[in-house]
Amino acid sequence: MKRLFTHTRILTMTAEEEPLEAHAMLVEDQRIAWIGPMEEAPIADEIVDLQGRLMLPGWVNTHGHAAMTLLRSFADDLPLQTWLEQYMWPIEARFGAEQVHWGTQLAVAEMIRCGTTCFTDMYDHMDEVAKVVETSGLRASLCRGVIGLGSQEERDWKRKEAVQFAKDWHGQADGRITTMMSPHAPYTCPPDYIEEIVTEATRLNLPIHIHLSETKGEVQRHVDTYGIRPVKHLEVLGVFKRPTLVAHAVHVTEEELEILLQYDVKISHNPGSNLKLGSGIAPIPLMLAKGLRPSLGTDGAASNNNLDIMEEVRLASLIHKGNTQDPEAVPAFTALKMGTCYGAEALFLDQEIGTLEVGKKADFITLDMNRPHLRPMHDLVSLLVYSASRADIQDVYVDGRALMRNQELLTIDEERILFETDRTFQAVAP
Amino acid sequence: MKRLFTHTRILTMTAEEEPLEAHAMLVEDQRIAWIGPMEEAPIADEIVDLQGRLMLPGWVNTHGHAAMTLLRSFADDLPLQTWLEQYMWPIEARFGAEQVHWGTQLAVAEMIRCGTTCFTDMYDHMDEVAKVVETSGLRASLCRGVIGLGSQEERDWKRKEAVQFAKDWHGQADGRITTMMSPHAPYTCPPDYIEEIVTEATRLNLPIHIHLSETKGEVQRHVDTYGIRPVKHLEVLGVFKRPTLVAHAVHVTEEELEILLQYDVKISHNPGSNLKLGSGIAPIPLMLAKGLRPSLGTDGAASNNNLDIMEEVRLASLIHKGNTQDPEAVPAFTALKMGTCYGAEALFLDQEIGTLEVGKKADFITLDMNRPHLRPMHDLVSLLVYSASRADIQDVYVDGRALMRNQELLTIDEERILFETDRTFQAVAP
Ligand SMILES: [Zn+2]
Ligand SMILES: [Zn+2]
Repeated sequence: MKRLFTHTRILTMTAEEEPLEAHAMLVEDQRIAWIGPMEEAPIADEIVDLQGRLMLPGWVNTHGHAAMTLLRSFADDLPLQTWLEQYMWPIEARFGAEQVHWGTQLAVAEMIRCGTTCFTDMYDHMDEVAKVVETSGLRASLCRGVIGLGSQEERDWKRKEAVQFAKDWHGQADGRITTMMSPHAPYTCPPDYIEEIVTEATRLNLPIHIHLSETKGEVQRHVDTYGIRPVKHLEVLGVFKRPTLVAHAVHVTEEELEILLQYDVKISHNPGSNLKLGSGIAPIPLMLAKGLRPSLGTDGAASNNNLDIMEEVRLASLIHKGNTQDPEAVPAFTALKMGTCYGAEALFLDQEIGTLEVGKKADFITLDMNRPHLRPMHDLVSLLVYSASRADIQDVYVDGRALMRNQELLTIDEERILFETDRTFQAVAP
Repeated sequence: MKRLFTHTRILTMTAEEEPLEAHAMLVEDQRIAWIGPMEEAPIADEIVDLQGRLMLPGWVNTHGHAAMTLLRSFADDLPLQTWLEQYMWPIEARFGAEQVHWGTQLAVAEMIRCGTTCFTDMYDHMDEVAKVVETSGLRASLCRGVIGLGSQEERDWKRKEAVQFAKDWHGQADGRITTMMSPHAPYTCPPDYIEEIVTEATRLNLPIHIHLSETKGEVQRHVDTYGIRPVKHLEVLGVFKRPTLVAHAVHVTEEELEILLQYDVKISHNPGSNLKLGSGIAPIPLMLAKGLRPSLGTDGAASNNNLDIMEEVRLASLIHKGNTQDPEAVPAFTALKMGTCYGAEALFLDQEIGTLEVGKKADFITLDMNRPHLRPMHDLVSLLVYSASRADIQDVYVDGRALMRNQELLTIDEERILFETDRTFQAVAP
């Protein structure tokens, strides 16, 4: 089945910053088979006229906890410890498979509407998450996050559960699901537990995903406990011998960035969550200057409070300019890369997704630029980053399959999701 | 004509943070005549069923240059002086009435879609702007901004033009237009020119609108030139004896804030523009702690790059939490006030607009909350500030007249605007 997408301007997110005007793209067997000018378009079984819409790779969300959508707007504007201890943890402890199922369905509905084609999830009851990914048609990198603060018994079954999940689902859903091993954070996992997880990751040949240096207080307590800073700590424990993705990296020194660079550690920058929780502002301009390629994540919807990577792109492009008083910090095209190709690298999927090139999976979105806030069209990259929003997204494709067309969701039942999320939250409500 | 709006939850933006559930609102002669529970609703000539949508006061944009939409995405990610001297000023010098007319039309189309019911404009060819306000049905506070760096002759005609405009249009368009006098900034107006404008403002009994302390360099040059900081400078020149609205106030000391407080000077916080131009982050938490009530502005679309006050509300609620590492800085409800009732105060219109109360003008918007990114509904204020976006806005009313219903613009021709803005920009393109 060859499907030709016509009348589009394509932002490939390869080296070229200028979109390809009046182009077409051929998709065959889930992959991009050809990209070229309209007049050279090959013959196809089906033609989809995109009516001048802008096409670009789908957004890649490199950190999150999807089921936490159930806790969106449940507790805000609170000090971190109050928020966690009095609100998040007690109610999350009552979450069962049903909450995770419908919370993830809600997240998936929102993410597709926001143009996310690949997301990352670190949570519990991960079989439910994987099943939702399978049916929704999205791509995802999934891990059962483990906290090692409990008994030896609890530590053991959590580790086994994480291993079992990673084995069961890696490569499933036509290859749309990949898995990682995930010790939750240096402050929630004792050193020997982190080492155990690394050993399992090595055995399974999987990457590591971990929270790192989100708040100043957490880093200070780490130094007080271990006498070294968190990055050195993880290096010593051998974490970085595995391909690793760290979330946040807000409070990192230049020396720590050097270590991350040396091991080619991937970073998920979560500006919305870091701002809202008062965690701080990650040194993204310094990371970029050193050659690190930070990606973007939303974190959970209880701390963001949405799953919109375009908003993270906007925040990443704006806040570092203001924070460093440098209008050239994080230029628009760099912010776009953070949301697309750097995201693919962060999930070790850059051979498959992140740019629109022949041979890659056909994961892409389109935007209607025919709107007052997107005129005049002096610079499409600038319009996309500084002026557009999720509401301009029309179509979302993964593996060449439409998940949304003309803003209509095709693989999930949105009405039912809205109903079920309210119901399943009420079942555990305080 | 009595029109009853039914089946709505109303966020009045008075002291009460909880929306009024299952309420109705009666509008008579452009004003709110009654608000109460559905079952007590009075008889009306016409009923508008809002189907459960959330109603709140329209957004008030307290600083901008509407016609600069023509320069949206024209030049970004540049150092301020390059941006101004090599891009903005040369092309703005070629702008005529036609550019201002269609640039403002484009701005108005975008602002109505974004739920703005009252905006502020400081620019040139202001008769064109006023005419667009008149026909579009929006409310606006307008001023001919004057720069006093030219010859005595130029200074004089600009001052006269500003006075003539302010006289001609104050109170026009059924009272929807009010005017101000506007010396552009301390760094573009010599002291005696500012004094002349203040004299005219006193004669006309109008407020002053002026840019203040946007960048660090500008403040430093001011101190080098005059030996005092800009706030003291304006105090000495008698500006604050008039009701005054200052835009930006990014680089202000605690002592300067005390002066602004003493004179009840209004502040327009423009976070999007301040971030994008690398100007810095205004000390909003300190202003709030002192009892100042900062409002929100978008600034021009060449430095934002959109006219979406909801995005400014979001930024105001997020960036100060991150910047001060305090999750309780600028709570959600405070950010909403900045976009609504504090905006009305900033334009000296708080007797007429800014909250939904009996006797005030019926300027309001509605949002469809039946969307995945707005579930579950634990807290409507939080959802509005942290999760919603302009695309959720359905209806926009000013003086009880619909400017947008179900996302359809009713008072302007959007198709034509998109066409004409491209054409009029081409006429002056470099
Ligand atoms: Zn997280
Ligand atoms: Zn301005």
